[in-house]
Amino acid sequence: MKVLIIDEMHESIVPLLSELNLEVDYMPKIKRHEIISIIKNYEGLIVRSKTPIDEALLKHATHLKFVARAGAGVDNVEVEELERRNIQLINAPEGNRDALAEHAMGMLLTLFNKINTADLEIRNGKWDREGNRGIELMGKTIGLLGFGNMGAAFAKRLSSFDCKIIAYDAQKTGFSNEYVEEVSLDILKEQTQILSLHIPMNAQNKGLINNDFLSKFKKLDYIINTSRGEVLILKDLLKLLTEDKIKGAALDVLENEKIKSLNPEELFVFQELTKLKQVILTPHIAGWSFESYEKINKVLYQKIKTLVRNIDNL
Amino acid sequence: MKVLIIDEMHESIVPLLSELNLEVDYMPKIKRHEIISIIKNYEGLIVRSKTPIDEALLKHATHLKFVARAGAGVDNVEVEELERRNIQLINAPEGNRDALAEHAMGMLLTLFNKINTADLEIRNGKWDREGNRGIELMGKTIGLLGFGNMGAAFAKRLSSFDCKIIAYDAQKTGFSNEYVEEVSLDILKEQTQILSLHIPMNAQNKGLINNDFLSKFKKLDYIINTSRGEVLILKDLLKLLTEDKIKGAALDVLENEKIKSLNPEELFVFQELTKLKQVILTPHIAGWSFESYEKINKVLYQKIKTLVRNIDNL
Repeated sequence: MKVLIIDEMHESIVPLLSELNLEVDYMPKIKRHEIISIIKNYEGLIVRSKTPIDEALLKHATHLKFVARAGAGVDNVEVEELERRNIQLINAPEGNRDALAEHAMGMLLTLFNKINTADLEIRNGKWDREGNRGIELMGKTIGLLGFGNMGAAFAKRLSSFDCKIIAYDAQKTGFSNEYVEEVSLDILKEQTQILSLHIPMNAQNKGLINNDFLSKFKKLDYIINTSRGEVLILKDLLKLLTEDKIKGAALDVLENEKIKSLNPEELFVFQELTKLKQVILTPHIAGWSFESYEKINKVLYQKIKTLVRNIDNL
Repeated sequence: MKVLIIDEMHESIVPLLSELNLEVDYMPKIKRHEIISIIKNYEGLIVRSKTPIDEALLKHATHLKFVARAGAGVDNVEVEELERRNIQLINAPEGNRDALAEHAMGMLLTLFNKINTADLEIRNGKWDREGNRGIELMGKTIGLLGFGNMGAAFAKRLSSFDCKIIAYDAQKTGFSNEYVEEVSLDILKEQTQILSLHIPMNAQNKGLINNDFLSKFKKLDYIINTSRGEVLILKDLLKLLTEDKIKGAALDVLENEKIKSLNPEELFVFQELTKLKQVILTPHIAGWSFESYEKINKVLYQKIKTLVRNIDNL
């Protein structure tokens, strides 16, 4: 069985897959038209997010049995098209959920304790204690929108901070556990003080978190987005921040992350956001740790192992 | 009973103490020589850290029954001198331990996830993912030096991150709990990857954490100091950082926090530290939250209430 890898991955992937007797072609620099020209030779395809795995590509993938995403979000994959062609899809959220949860906690605590601005002040020779007094997480209510691997891992980290953790997930129910209380969307909007987004990017969620959605929250003060930039309308967030209706935001993802080629409106919103002290920005790295880079491979290895066995048994 | 308050405190302190039928003089701007001239009129004195409570002052405090510290560290108070004069000392670490624990977690996660440097890069138009890959706390061994209120509160927060937490305290034993394993100083030095300081400043601890002390750690990569600056020799830390023997440091406190009046050697060390990306600095604010400002008063109220009752019953 031949497997094509079209994105950069931790070097452990080739030896791991070779253990499964798979023939692996690691071609992280390959271009889309080159993939299209050779994809018919492969039963497996491993991707990150560079290349859209769409109908135009898949119609050439006549022998493809699985697509594996080295990471969590599958928004670059046309899931229905895979289903139609009976190609299995696997991803590896278990590999980067811990990195994401720790990063989200770090962003939230940095925001609450003014760590980034205080650090910069000191480097500029200013030692201001009163101006950098923090806010405690203890006793606050955190609302999670989405409760998959990422939401659950974040909830676990929050559990030692004595705050109330509630969650709503449009896709599932019955997930209350020792850390989190499942609630309706209405209750989420009524009680949440800190909103953390853990929803996938898809047609329903694109632009979901806009002014209208956020305005229905009764006590909302802070937003954290470590999911996908396209779910949160930044110009609406900017408006709420500048009108002081929201006190702060931690954004690991943006609607358009190609910040060198923003259109004039996107550029305006981006620049205004970067002027605000109550905003923290990181470059889509929440799930990116040295550990997760390797853990993702271990998760894929296990899932591909099961998948290959099932295929062999057909 | 009359009480003199000589430092700024959250406004709730006067009504709280009035409930105890204490006569309170709130004089946050008072100077040392003025305190000395009127202290004989007071049974209680409430302080933060501005004024040394030493023999020269206490010899005038002929009616003083208690000194209360609105905060945790009592390094500005000559404890033996109070004991000799039978003046009771109370402090309020229970009021700011949660703020400190959250801040320490924030500093550690900021350091591990490069949040402050990544944020600054984005504000300068740079979106670098690979250069900002983080490190996970999960699986690491954190060693706490000192296990009082602060160490315990920090250990509690760490408990949801799946790391190993060990602690040594020169002043006590038998404190292992659900979060932390008590160890000898030798084991602490053998196993610790991340060292967090939670010791008080006193004659024994002044300069304790120096090159000699740190060099005995076998696996030490990171240091967090949210205790007192004087316990950690910064020039030794700088040397270990620049020689790459230690990978990073989070410092909320400095040996000399009057950064506008450092001597040439102190200034050199300070400036070199501020050039390093692997150092995070905050201006002695770990225990300073809006919530702790008020919680400290509630703790003092309870302790003074007990103390006043005991005095009345004599």
